[in-house]
Amino acid sequence: NINVNTFDSQKEFKEFKLNSDGLLPVVVQDYKTNEVLMVAYMNEEAYNNTIQTGKMTYYSRSRKEQWLKGDTSGHYQYVKSLSIDCDSDTLLAKVHQIGAACHTGNRTCFYTEIVKKEYDDTNPLTVFSDVYNIIMDRKNNPKE
Amino acid sequence: NINVNTFDSQKEFKEFKLNSDGLLPVVVQDYKTNEVLMVAYMNEEAYNNTIQTGKMTYYSRSRKEQWLKGDTSGHYQYVKSLSIDCDSDTLLAKVHQIGAACHTGNRTCFYTEIVKKEYDDTNPLTVFSDVYNIIMDRKNNPKE
Repeated sequence: NINVNTFDSQKEFKEFKLNSDGLLPVVVQDYKTNEVLMVAYMNEEAYNNTIQTGKMTYYSRSRKEQWLKGDTSGHYQYVKSLSIDCDSDTLLAKVHQIGAACHTGNRTCFYTEIVKKEYDDTNPLTVFSDVYNIIMDRKNNPKE
Repeated sequence: NINVNTFDSQKEFKEFKLNSDGLLPVVVQDYKTNEVLMVAYMNEEAYNNTIQTGKMTYYSRSRKEQWLKGDTSGHYQYVKSLSIDCDSDTLLAKVHQIGAACHTGNRTCFYTEIVKKEYDDTNPLTVFSDVYNIIMDRKNNPKE
């Protein structure tokens, strides 16, 4: 029930600056919450497959092959937007993530916090989304 | 007027898996909006400096030296949290960004959108933050 679209890219892969392994790092972000889900890598074939299918496709460094994310798990990532950074060496993908991004079953791969400064978490965006979540919860689970 | 704190990390740098250049990629995110600001790289010295000073410090691949972000521009990044991903090869930093993250003066380095799927942008989080911005604007710029 999700439309798969073909996109046009305003840049070709050869315009990007690759890392020492000849790959382009990709930061993957939930397009609604902006949560960072994972970082993976693309070669030219993976980039072109991503553009052509609308589904995030990477180059697996361990298996050394194309990796259509979700191909085995069903946890596809549908492309919403792609942006390249100022020195053209890192891609940022905003995606509609089906299920969990992480192979561990966690929504994000970055579930291990190793440093935390106590800070006031009552920032406006959080307050509003918290209130929204309460409203939706009351709607879904009405109390008489 | 911003407190600088020293942190304890729950992991040591030697526990991380480094890339082909012996560096750790770091995704840097605004701690309030979750906007991805930039990607940079750390070596052990940069990581330890970051922990000890509470200010994001990288290894400059072009200058081949420690790079205290903001040292020349004043655009420091104060650490709010650091998370490591499931395979310990990428760090996610949530920061309080002073000024612009990008050397071009843009808030984020990812200001060049190359692919965009039209999608309904009226998601709940955006609706609430839009309303909040309108309220704040009316408060700051009251109309008689």
